[in-house]
Amino acid sequence: MPALTYKLLKTDACSNARLGTVHTPHGSFETPAFMPVGTQATVKGLLPGQVADTGAQILLGNTYHLMLRPGSELIAELGGLHVFMRWDKPILTDSGGFQVFSLGDINRINDDGVSFKSHLDGSTIELTPQRSMQVQHELGSDIIMAFDDCPPAATLNDHQQQRAKQFGSNVSTRAPHLHAGLKTTNEASHENAGPDSVAYRERVKVANERTLRWLDACVKYHRGSGRDADQALFGIVQGGTDLDQRTACVEAVCAHDLPGYAIGGVAVGEGPDEIKSVVEHTAPLLPDDRPRYLMGVGYPADLVTAVRAGVDMFDCVLPSRNGRNGFAFLPDGSIRLKNATHRDDPAPIEAGCDCVACVGGFSRAYLRHLFMADEMLGPILVSLHNQRLYQRLMLDIRTAIRDDAWLALAERWPAACPGGFA
Amino acid sequence: MPALTYKLLKTDACSNARLGTVHTPHGSFETPAFMPVGTQATVKGLLPGQVADTGAQILLGNTYHLMLRPGSELIAELGGLHVFMRWDKPILTDSGGFQVFSLGDINRINDDGVSFKSHLDGSTIELTPQRSMQVQHELGSDIIMAFDDCPPAATLNDHQQQRAKQFGSNVSTRAPHLHAGLKTTNEASHENAGPDSVAYRERVKVANERTLRWLDACVKYHRGSGRDADQALFGIVQGGTDLDQRTACVEAVCAHDLPGYAIGGVAVGEGPDEIKSVVEHTAPLLPDDRPRYLMGVGYPADLVTAVRAGVDMFDCVLPSRNGRNGFAFLPDGSIRLKNATHRDDPAPIEAGCDCVACVGGFSRAYLRHLFMADEMLGPILVSLHNQRLYQRLMLDIRTAIRDDAWLALAERWPAACPGGFA
Repeated sequence: MPALTYKLLKTDACSNARLGTVHTPHGSFETPAFMPVGTQATVKGLLPGQVADTGAQILLGNTYHLMLRPGSELIAELGGLHVFMRWDKPILTDSGGFQVFSLGDINRINDDGVSFKSHLDGSTIELTPQRSMQVQHELGSDIIMAFDDCPPAATLNDHQQQRAKQFGSNVSTRAPHLHAGLKTTNEASHENAGPDSVAYRERVKVANERTLRWLDACVKYHRGSGRDADQALFGIVQGGTDLDQRTACVEAVCAHDLPGYAIGGVAVGEGPDEIKSVVEHTAPLLPDDRPRYLMGVGYPADLVTAVRAGVDMFDCVLPSRNGRNGFAFLPDGSIRLKNATHRDDPAPIEAGCDCVACVGGFSRAYLRHLFMADEMLGPILVSLHNQRLYQRLMLDIRTAIRDDAWLALAERWPAACPGGFA
Repeated sequence: MPALTYKLLKTDACSNARLGTVHTPHGSFETPAFMPVGTQATVKGLLPGQVADTGAQILLGNTYHLMLRPGSELIAELGGLHVFMRWDKPILTDSGGFQVFSLGDINRINDDGVSFKSHLDGSTIELTPQRSMQVQHELGSDIIMAFDDCPPAATLNDHQQQRAKQFGSNVSTRAPHLHAGLKTTNEASHENAGPDSVAYRERVKVANERTLRWLDACVKYHRGSGRDADQALFGIVQGGTDLDQRTACVEAVCAHDLPGYAIGGVAVGEGPDEIKSVVEHTAPLLPDDRPRYLMGVGYPADLVTAVRAGVDMFDCVLPSRNGRNGFAFLPDGSIRLKNATHRDDPAPIEAGCDCVACVGGFSRAYLRHLFMADEMLGPILVSLHNQRLYQRLMLDIRTAIRDDAWLALAERWPAACPGGFA
């Protein structure tokens, strides 16, 4: 019995969208699925029971953060991540690679792995494919991710920077590892590193080569450990915005018979059109009979686009991060609860929403007060709303696939379906 | 039908402890009762339903904070404090006086009231007996408190300052209004203002006179407003640690036929022996047929002492404030969850506790991790435990009175009953 099985229930008639179920040692989850992010062994501000009550059936944990604090050895000693954080449903952990590149102060990157300084205490830490596997084995997550080299987008344009600022940012505005392992040349400077630049293409090529070499090492270590009966290793496709590189990477990654595959290196600073192009190109290339996971994406509209391209799994910090900052998602956009316009508004965030905040009758005026007064309950309530809204969207997406009801989805979720499905 | 009725169910055979029930327009609560503090219209970090689930039957709100932000007019416009914060059980609000003295930058204090600068934006605000009543009418709380002049303790000794520091302080270490309205003399300087000093005695005398004058004004305003059918005004006894002043103040305050009476000016910096002496002297002087409320107290041992002196109602920030800082109360003391000793401890805060944190199986190791990682869930879980522990204590206190079971109480709650009841 493998650690993970995927059952494809239905493929949409007019898109690549798929309805399915994934079975893991900690139970099943329906796909397309959205995974709330529990970076430090907690979805910020929420009890595990509250997260489950939003409809979430699987969580994501961050290997990088957990290996630094409290340490995966300690978590293993205490029974693994499920027991540690009191979440008995499935958990997926990432490989740590993305955070090493975005948070760590990198000393050295080579074909073996990465040496970096911890962002917590400055200590020097090595992360290799083998070490990433070992840490994820200690965490005991149901799905573990291969250690990959994830290059940032070629450049961030003004629109993205503004959007990042406006929404509290899920878009990294730093590109510290654009030149990782490459000589710095004039062509490679950040300002000139457009998607067609020599530097960018070269960086993506190197990343792909490393990602494949590291995947080999991950598969070997994981199978050798005997943990593949309990934990499912997913491979990750890189390739940046270069579609040929994506194709090549899919072929090489899928040469390994793995229980699932992910599209990485998306939403690392590129624009929505580029995200769309990469996802629509890459998802259909992945095997039909395995779950497909788009890492770190995204806004509701990104999810719908990706589902229709054939993606099954998502994670993103947006519902929690924006919620903490007072941004509430709505089917037709979002609102900033700190705005003065909500000062005396007795309405809930969203009439008809069945989340704890809206059903509980907490008014926008009250929520604004909580944010003005810097009270924890503000972030808690808006996180609860946003997490539930994302799960409501996934529920409606699954219904749209099951019932061929995309027009109803577009009517109900205008912001997630901006172009409709004409 | 008055706004509030008190039913005395039983008086303890071997102490002045009383079992009772208080009826308000928003339902009843059993006494002795502990009221969690919802300073800014929220018990910090907790949903109202979670607070109710700890067993709390009545909350306290702070008039000072709410009048400054978001403003009592706005709360009234939105339906009052119960609706605003989604708490449909009884609410008591204080008068704002204590916070004006401890948080406000006082410009002027005279027989009419206090003029102070807001600690939020520096604006000048007047608080008078009439204004305090008006604000509490707008808040719509079931029990409103008379506006009083509350002098601080004569001095803070080293032990108290250390204790305040250790526990994140519910003890004000400032005494800004010791000389309020008095000429500053050498005798009145902080260092020399011992409990027997001329300055302290004079300050207490002035406070008593003002408290009584202001009470007259509150009663007149409240009755004239017609709100006394919905909101019950409690009088407050001051007098510092001077027992003769306490006696005189009880007599004058109780000359007003009010639905309840409070002991104020306690736990403002004096030591546990002084608190005990004042409470044991004052509580029995108050009418038998009205609830007695000891304001701002305190540690579990303070509650037991005060209950046995005949006190029925309590409020204190300690369960939440200490919880936020990682201090968990236990029946036999307290623990600091940030301590390294809890690093790998799989035990819950308290085996056998029925709170969300302990029943949920969240280990001390996990809680320590949350505090180390500055995650909101740490304060949330330990606040939930501490609030439930306080309610468990009150439940056991009520059982002890009902069943004459004080020895069982002392066995179960050693820290709250340090001397036993031999």
